[in-house]
Amino acid sequence: MIEGDFKEMGARSVNNIINKGGTILKSARSKEFMTPEGRKKAHENLVKNNIDALVIIGGNGSFTGGLIFNDEYKFPVIGIPGTIDNDIYGTSHTLGYDTALNTVVEAIDKIRDTASSHNRLFFIEVMGRDAGHIALNAGIGAGAEEILIPEEDMGLDRLLDSLRKSKASGKSSSIVVIAEGDKIGKNAFELKDYVEENMPEYDVRVSILGHMQRGGSPSCFDRVLASRLGVKAVETLLEGKSNYMVGLIKDEVELTPLENAVKGKSQVDKELIRVSDIVSI
Amino acid sequence: MIEGDFKEMGARSVNNIINKGGTILKSARSKEFMTPEGRKKAHENLVKNNIDALVIIGGNGSFTGGLIFNDEYKFPVIGIPGTIDNDIYGTSHTLGYDTALNTVVEAIDKIRDTASSHNRLFFIEVMGRDAGHIALNAGIGAGAEEILIPEEDMGLDRLLDSLRKSKASGKSSSIVVIAEGDKIGKNAFELKDYVEENMPEYDVRVSILGHMQRGGSPSCFDRVLASRLGVKAVETLLEGKSNYMVGLIKDEVELTPLENAVKGKSQVDKELIRVSDIVSI
Amino acid sequence: MIEGDFKEMGARSVNNIINKGGTILKSARSKEFMTPEGRKKAHENLVKNNIDALVIIGGNGSFTGGLIFNDEYKFPVIGIPGTIDNDIYGTSHTLGYDTALNTVVEAIDKIRDTASSHNRLFFIEVMGRDAGHIALNAGIGAGAEEILIPEEDMGLDRLLDSLRKSKASGKSSSIVVIAEGDKIGKNAFELKDYVEENMPEYDVRVSILGHMQRGGSPSCFDRVLASRLGVKAVETLLEGKSNYMVGLIKDEVELTPLENAVKGKSQVDKELIRVSDIVSI
Amino acid sequence: MIEGDFKEMGARSVNNIINKGGTILKSARSKEFMTPEGRKKAHENLVKNNIDALVIIGGNGSFTGGLIFNDEYKFPVIGIPGTIDNDIYGTSHTLGYDTALNTVVEAIDKIRDTASSHNRLFFIEVMGRDAGHIALNAGIGAGAEEILIPEEDMGLDRLLDSLRKSKASGKSSSIVVIAEGDKIGKNAFELKDYVEENMPEYDVRVSILGHMQRGGSPSCFDRVLASRLGVKAVETLLEGKSNYMVGLIKDEVELTPLENAVKGKSQVDKELIRVSDIVSI
Repeated sequence: MIEGDFKEMGARSVNNIINKGGTILKSARSKEFMTPEGRKKAHENLVKNNIDALVIIGGNGSFTGGLIFNDEYKFPVIGIPGTIDNDIYGTSHTLGYDTALNTVVEAIDKIRDTASSHNRLFFIEVMGRDAGHIALNAGIGAGAEEILIPEEDMGLDRLLDSLRKSKASGKSSSIVVIAEGDKIGKNAFELKDYVEENMPEYDVRVSILGHMQRGGSPSCFDRVLASRLGVKAVETLLEGKSNYMVGLIKDEVELTPLENAVKGKSQVDKELIRVSDIVSI
Repeated sequence: MIEGDFKEMGARSVNNIINKGGTILKSARSKEFMTPEGRKKAHENLVKNNIDALVIIGGNGSFTGGLIFNDEYKFPVIGIPGTIDNDIYGTSHTLGYDTALNTVVEAIDKIRDTASSHNRLFFIEVMGRDAGHIALNAGIGAGAEEILIPEEDMGLDRLLDSLRKSKASGKSSSIVVIAEGDKIGKNAFELKDYVEENMPEYDVRVSILGHMQRGGSPSCFDRVLASRLGVKAVETLLEGKSNYMVGLIKDEVELTPLENAVKGKSQVDKELIRVSDIVSI
Repeated sequence: MIEGDFKEMGARSVNNIINKGGTILKSARSKEFMTPEGRKKAHENLVKNNIDALVIIGGNGSFTGGLIFNDEYKFPVIGIPGTIDNDIYGTSHTLGYDTALNTVVEAIDKIRDTASSHNRLFFIEVMGRDAGHIALNAGIGAGAEEILIPEEDMGLDRLLDSLRKSKASGKSSSIVVIAEGDKIGKNAFELKDYVEENMPEYDVRVSILGHMQRGGSPSCFDRVLASRLGVKAVETLLEGKSNYMVGLIKDEVELTPLENAVKGKSQVDKELIRVSDIVSI
Repeated sequence: MIEGDFKEMGARSVNNIINKGGTILKSARSKEFMTPEGRKKAHENLVKNNIDALVIIGGNGSFTGGLIFNDEYKFPVIGIPGTIDNDIYGTSHTLGYDTALNTVVEAIDKIRDTASSHNRLFFIEVMGRDAGHIALNAGIGAGAEEILIPEEDMGLDRLLDSLRKSKASGKSSSIVVIAEGDKIGKNAFELKDYVEENMPEYDVRVSILGHMQRGGSPSCFDRVLASRLGVKAVETLLEGKSNYMVGLIKDEVELTPLENAVKGKSQVDKELIRVSDIVSI
């Protein structure tokens, strides 16, 4: 928008890209758009090119920018929640989240192959920013013995207790999934040191899954969700509405005021934490 | 149950199987259980082995058997919907369905690679029994140009129209996803003949995805859903209830009377048919 | 070449396509090039665009066309063997073959999940034209109980014998991999009828893997092989040579006269047939 | 062997495990076997159980143990090279290596999705102990802009030069694959600091792929190779031979004296380094 680099798209323009990870737009965080001058330039370019609305795929930062832009120029904006972290209020699923869960679970399946080979304890750190969605769901999905998420302060003693119980119950190896934003007070490497000190019988390994979680061919769920949200975003604009985020709530596509989406806090499913405690005995 | 072949299981018995497709139980359709004598034998064996409830993973057939068994012997039964076809009333997702969607979409992605190489029209038949869930969702997910499901009588003329429009819009190749139970009046091979007769410019290929759709390592969604439904099934029995199916309704685990699950009919999402019409232009 | 549709390519032109299946060239069998007029037009266009050599990725048909073209116009041509069928003389591996093997093995793994669930016999037909390379290697890789390839006339009696032995040895289900070009005298569906007639205890299913075998993201082996063959093709042309195919022979990139590549016949590894007989007991 | 924990295996004992990663044997490095007392116990147990030969799947450590054991007790031993690192003399491919290459390439494909989205430089560290096999092959396979292996001392200046050229040639993002044993004098994190200091325009990220490289369902190549090596190992023992490693040399299964396998050094393909320099411009 700031560089005036536009391209008209038709139905065929997205031909054969539904199976690709990443973005074909190559847009990224823009410092210039954070300045009034940047936004002025963007608005002039939009008007000059007869563009009359913005659909913003992103998270809180992008949505906040959209709200400011709308406030200044009355330019219609609709948000689509796109992040693997699932940490956006107003939708049960963000675009990319389901794909990331499958990527994480496949990676942990591979690590477990080596864990059961070699009698080890693995600390696996997954993404999620300040939210435990990925850790909790992928942890259950991967059959982790323990899941550490920022929403639950487990405490180091309880971790040791749990690992001891797991060992006693006959497990020869264990997987602990740790959310990157975990507030347990120690990071994965410090945790490793702590456990090795207290349970010297364990050979602890750390694996940080890293950026591969952000790519990959999208899952069917994400592709269908993207289609549903995209249709709703355009139809909402055609109805003359602005400043909404389209999202999935209880399996239905719903609108949430963009302001609420930005201010609200997505919650991990407390019931799922309970399920996780039961199945990871 | 009929052969008296039981095995006590603890928390460790399912260690390291969460990532496996298929069943470790190796149970299958039993003709003997359909007879009063067979069920009598099953009941005696259950009682003899101090088993006091049944959790049945399956579809309408298994649930009907469970209801009859409960009626005859007052034996507590809970059903868990397990089929890739997603054709069970009382749950938005059956176990295995999400995995099958990803398998189908990956297979069609591969076929599309060759379609764009060689200017072809592909008719791809997917599973789903009498329901179009897999075809509709995987069709959208795979970017199919046309989706034929039993719930919608498209008519052959509209199919030709749609293919002509797709060709005119610049697509050099097309994917048509067909549900196996499609009631369009012709099967995939007959459709091929019909289209080739009327659009000789197309080189039509047929691919029946077949049994690979029923296997494979489960998706994270299916693993988490299985954990949630399993916990609920056991807790429902512990509460003294019987004759319910546990299922997912609007993202929550809910109970549906087993009788309703058997009699009801799962519906494809009409809104999704509309989305599919829009995105597959 | 015939349409004069050229595009200059540099080192960056193939940026980020190494992971894609299919072809970005979208070239295909050309009837016009089979005529002297077509080739004349092609030659004129090549000369007009200052192109001084051809690298042909394909199989026998494309190479034959290249030889005729070279014969008529003394235009330098080098062939690169590209087909999933691995049926080209002068190379142990064609481009795409290793990827197809992995695709087939993954598909059969999924089918086996359902086979062990349900006590079945599966006939799985794989590609390979008149050669058994895919069937033999993927059959061993997938742990098939029996592999039927055109290079070996097994005879129907031996098939039944083998299935009976497999059953007697305790296998509850069996996978039979059949090459599409199998000369056993019956196709997969006729074989099914024959076996069911003679071994009614089996529930036989047929799966034709089909076109998905031709697509998908290439394996590391295929990507490295493509890089090696591409470099050698260009360097061979720079040395002033023509009418060679570059191929892999005993792990080294070697040149084979294109005429020999066309006339020769690739052989399945007889030793591998022996290994297959041993491991598939 | 030391614990006397044996299990007789027949043809059916490995039923349905060909698709699994990891080991079902759960054997691992044994300190006791490194002592004369441990080996004495092992020999007594073997004799007591009528076992008359050992097939050792492993690397230099396991083979050295086997040689000492044979020296002390004249007990027949045959080695099968099993490690993802491909660093064993006497075979072009070790078991697990091809699978690891595909795992690494798939992971880097995912990371590249995010790299092209966000204009970044990625340093990706892969396994390989002191050998660059994985880094070199997976680096070419993943289209890496630069590959750092212990066999080639690139020097930091040349790395910066190369990155600058890559940037100048129009690449918006770059992948650098680093072997874990790289002798460039800095590890991945130190390299990151160095590059960011000298090329502040880059946002450098580090990803250590880690233990997931050691697991996962084996590729078709690895499954076929395992079948071939296994058959040869047993047949070699039946011929009364001992102290050999079976391996793949120029596409044929060959014997190498176990002592040479232990003392020799596997070499990366120098020609491949040249290819990598050409294709990664």
